[in-house]
Amino acid sequence: MMERTEINELGEFGLIDRLTKNIEIKNASTVLGVGDDAAVIDPLGKQIVITTDLLLEGVHFDLTYTPLKHLGYKSIIVNLSDVYAMGATPTQVTVSIGISNRFGVEAIEEFYEGVYAACEKYDVDLVGGDTSSSQKGFVISVTAIGEVLADKFIQRNGANKSDLLCVSGDLGAAYLGLLFLEREKKIFMEAPKVQPNLEGEAYVVGRLLKPEARKDIISFFEKQTLVPTSMIDISDGLSSEILHLCKQSNLGCVLYEEKIPIKEEAKNAAFKFEIDPTACALSGGEDYELLFTIAQSDYEKLDSSIPITVIGYMTEPELGTHLITKGGSKHPLIAQGWNAMNK
Amino acid sequence: MMERTEINELGEFGLIDRLTKNIEIKNASTVLGVGDDAAVIDPLGKQIVITTDLLLEGVHFDLTYTPLKHLGYKSIIVNLSDVYAMGATPTQVTVSIGISNRFGVEAIEEFYEGVYAACEKYDVDLVGGDTSSSQKGFVISVTAIGEVLADKFIQRNGANKSDLLCVSGDLGAAYLGLLFLEREKKIFMEAPKVQPNLEGEAYVVGRLLKPEARKDIISFFEKQTLVPTSMIDISDGLSSEILHLCKQSNLGCVLYEEKIPIKEEAKNAAFKFEIDPTACALSGGEDYELLFTIAQSDYEKLDSSIPITVIGYMTEPELGTHLITKGGSKHPLIAQGWNAMNK
Repeated sequence: MMERTEINELGEFGLIDRLTKNIEIKNASTVLGVGDDAAVIDPLGKQIVITTDLLLEGVHFDLTYTPLKHLGYKSIIVNLSDVYAMGATPTQVTVSIGISNRFGVEAIEEFYEGVYAACEKYDVDLVGGDTSSSQKGFVISVTAIGEVLADKFIQRNGANKSDLLCVSGDLGAAYLGLLFLEREKKIFMEAPKVQPNLEGEAYVVGRLLKPEARKDIISFFEKQTLVPTSMIDISDGLSSEILHLCKQSNLGCVLYEEKIPIKEEAKNAAFKFEIDPTACALSGGEDYELLFTIAQSDYEKLDSSIPITVIGYMTEPELGTHLITKGGSKHPLIAQGWNAMNK
Repeated sequence: MMERTEINELGEFGLIDRLTKNIEIKNASTVLGVGDDAAVIDPLGKQIVITTDLLLEGVHFDLTYTPLKHLGYKSIIVNLSDVYAMGATPTQVTVSIGISNRFGVEAIEEFYEGVYAACEKYDVDLVGGDTSSSQKGFVISVTAIGEVLADKFIQRNGANKSDLLCVSGDLGAAYLGLLFLEREKKIFMEAPKVQPNLEGEAYVVGRLLKPEARKDIISFFEKQTLVPTSMIDISDGLSSEILHLCKQSNLGCVLYEEKIPIKEEAKNAAFKFEIDPTACALSGGEDYELLFTIAQSDYEKLDSSIPITVIGYMTEPELGTHLITKGGSKHPLIAQGWNAMNK
């Protein structure tokens, strides 16, 4: 059986000491990390970007099927994804948690193992946070900081008419992973002795539980001196994010269903659930891919070394926002994405 | 009756638009505020400090007696206090909230009125955040950013032997305010028709519900070119914070009970509860005053224009950390402060 140390035995400061004792600072810009009233960062002439996300048990994650280590990892990734979506490089994070007494110290350490694994992989320093009890449910708040050369950040509002609409990686899989896990949870609730059956679903389940942020895409842009005109990360589903780019850039767009990158594994999973894989890509969310626009003249800078797909193009705003289906019919694009407020 | 608009009517993005539509950026360092994947800040050659606090309903606040506007105000203040405790000037904040469906849009607007009132008063820009539903309870996570001249930030570990131990303002009142509000809540629960009796307790209740951060002290330091050798803000009670300074500076200290600044209002309140006002100052917490050390040679820079009290001095670590009571006896200083983990 797993060892269990009560958090009260350590106290708040003891717990923080235990969770942060192995930190090694990796970024020159991190002047002062954990342990004072605030962290100190020296941007060394660059501008900084800052983004924050709140993750609440029962709303954003379900501990029935989310290992704590994966949860720690993902909490960091979803924030780094926002930093990359600005065309910036993440450098520091702060992590605050609210924990009820159903968690022992070892469980919290497992969560932090995931946090540190993500920090390690993305060369980010954990520089602060807050640790508190919560009456009910696990509460996570992460803030990520990144750096970017002066005025080289990429906003949502810079797309131009005729720009190509591009997306990294593949879409829809995370949502299908969620459907599988929810199905297995339901079966487990009704018949606890039945072993979960996730055979063949490692890809879609992995996309939900252990997403990555597209550091490689930002590096590729640098290597190719390719500057997207606008960019956003896909957390709420492709439709919703495209509509953000269109609205903020005051443009319309045409999106081709046949171009939307969907992996075979996701198509198979969608088939099992008898749902349309395109709908999963459009409205599923949690893909943490980058959606961006580039000038047509930059098309030649794309190459096969990197998973970037052109899925459509931007138009005059009067032409609206449309999806051209595989059958050739035209539908207005609607944001039906995951909406935290409707849960 | 107060109007009530359901949050679902607006959706997440509609709510964010409504809450952020009147923002006017005040700081030159704020390059890009709310509305993209991340905010962008240009520190203009300065270093930045970053701090974050998680506030959870039922742990850090009780909505039975905490007006939402005050809560919004206080959420900002507790973070600004940490920025000032670094000797830095706060410039930006992000505010994330998790809200259950028991709140309508108007209630959230009330909370943000408090947030904006604090931002206005302290010249801080709200540049981002996250809005989510919560299954239960109101969740608040604030991150504050400040700026400081290169390497001029003040840590907890810089105190020297013989330095004077100083504190701003007065202590213990917020805890007494809490005791009053908890008492009235209990009476209300047992007999809802009884009107709350907080007569004469405006000061202590105000200290709990609407604290301020000590911007004036930081301005005073600048004016006097007075550089504290170490500094921390008082959120957990004087004892706990003194022990932090001693531990991190590797020193001992002597604290004089008779020097601890306690207001008449707090003494009266303590008398009513038959508790020792000194205990309230030592262990109460939530005062958001600054505790700092200065070289003896800087003593003459203090003046009567600013509420700073010398309460003791730092010693060799071997001498330990002691309180000299009004009666002249000597007690080891123990951290019995409010501890979020034991609640």
